Amino acid sequence: MPATLEQAPTLFVEASGVRFAYRRLGPDSGIPLVLLQHFTGTMDAWDPAMVNALAADRPVIAFDNAGVGASSGETPDSVERQAADAEAFIAALGLKQIDLLGFSLGGFLAQVMAARDTVDVRRLVLAGTAPRGGEEHLLQVVEEAFGRGARDVRLPLFFTSSAASQAAGAAFVDRAAVRQIDRDPDRGEAVSTPQAQAIIRWCAPKEIDRAALDAIRQPALIVHGSDDTMFPSINAYEMFKSMNNATLIMYPDSGHGALFQYAETFVAHVRTFLDA
Amino acid sequence: MPATLEQAPTLFVEASGVRFAYRRLGPDSGIPLVLLQHFTGTMDAWDPAMVNALAADRPVIAFDNAGVGASSGETPDSVERQAADAEAFIAALGLKQIDLLGFSLGGFLAQVMAARDTVDVRRLVLAGTAPRGGEEHLLQVVEEAFGRGARDVRLPLFFTSSAASQAAGAAFVDRAAVRQIDRDPDRGEAVSTPQAQAIIRWCAPKEIDRAALDAIRQPALIVHGSDDTMFPSINAYEMFKSMNNATLIMYPDSGHGALFQYAETFVAHVRTFLDA
Repeated sequence: MPATLEQAPTLFVEASGVRFAYRRLGPDSGIPLVLLQHFTGTMDAWDPAMVNALAADRPVIAFDNAGVGASSGETPDSVERQAADAEAFIAALGLKQIDLLGFSLGGFLAQVMAARDTVDVRRLVLAGTAPRGGEEHLLQVVEEAFGRGARDVRLPLFFTSSAASQAAGAAFVDRAAVRQIDRDPDRGEAVSTPQAQAIIRWCAPKEIDRAALDAIRQPALIVHGSDDTMFPSINAYEMFKSMNNATLIMYPDSGHGALFQYAETFVAHVRTFLDA
Repeated sequence: MPATLEQAPTLFVEASGVRFAYRRLGPDSGIPLVLLQHFTGTMDAWDPAMVNALAADRPVIAFDNAGVGASSGETPDSVERQAADAEAFIAALGLKQIDLLGFSLGGFLAQVMAARDTVDVRRLVLAGTAPRGGEEHLLQVVEEAFGRGARDVRLPLFFTSSAASQAAGAAFVDRAAVRQIDRDPDRGEAVSTPQAQAIIRWCAPKEIDRAALDAIRQPALIVHGSDDTMFPSINAYEMFKSMNNATLIMYPDSGHGALFQYAETFVAHVRTFLDA
């Protein structure tokens, strides 16, 4: 039986003075797909439906970046230094070439890593993410969502208010809660404060940084919800237009967590993209 | 051996006083995918790479609408009446439920047919097409392309000026020229004049007709090039935003003929959509 995200043991590797926690799924051979997680998310915050299906035909690696979850170290307050930590982790695993799947904040890291190519990034998937600059109302959206008293803040933040989207959101939250052993600890403000600073700095420039997007030469797949309240859908379109080799996919009636709302379709699209 | 677009015999069916020419590929059972063709295009103008791959797991029906190619009758000068002809053809074949794939002008027909549901449209694929209204510079683009003296006007009209897109365009033009027997006749201005009038009327309203898009309740897949000079890419995004249940896919470095430039990927995306 292949390991699942709910069952895979947490492994550790040392790099740059950090003991990185990770889980590895899927076959031994093939180009590994490394997952880069969202604001405050740990390995447990990925959707098992998505991760397990992706691991059916390629190695998939989830990990906690420095300072996050079960990893030691401190979380830096810039996207560049978080990306450097991720690169150190990937190098420590001895991976020669990788694909990246970055969600939200993880998509910022993926953009930086693909552009500077310190590790050999073959292709990248940018889900629910944003270009550097051009975004102003994120904090307001987050504050409003936390004020709503939902059973899980991801329900108002990642899904639309429609019954269908909320039902898909509840199913996602339930799937991500199945794992019982070895769940990652929540490191609280030691993670949320520096990560929030990194996100705010990334979004701060008034204009979208098109030169940064142009510096990415790898094929990219941008996946976005129709109504992402955190990172506006139109900015994902602009990101697509400014990149050299990007494919854009947007799903109906969906928000920031479109990739989990349509996990099965998303996996099919990622597979078509990575195998092209 | 299954029939291919290059080999399938041309069949005929009578409806509304028109003798419709069509070709049918793929298995006998399953929901048929009916193809709705672009301005002046006949059955021979479809890309065999796309059609044959689509027919691997579903019935696919290409046809000449009234007055076009090998069909008898006259080409009406409105999208609505062209759509009525297509509906008469589909009813004459006795098809209970269909999927539609409309390219360019064919996508206009698909929108009208899906909204009024005279025939039972289950799902629709809208490739390189446009919402009603909001488009002004089409005639200028077409005139410029015809003035360039390309070996085939589809090279400047359907593909970008990049070497990669032009090479993909040349390969498409070659693929569509393979069939030798029974090629559809070109009916010249008897088709181009009324079809052009229909297109001009469709595009004429200053604003995008969002109510018409909202009237479409079926799941839709919108596929567009990054740089479509005939029907602007941003309008495809707006169409996506105004529909109830649309998925948007856009390909890099591509124009109006993005579906042919990326035939293999397009087929994978259509299959994922129709099988969802």
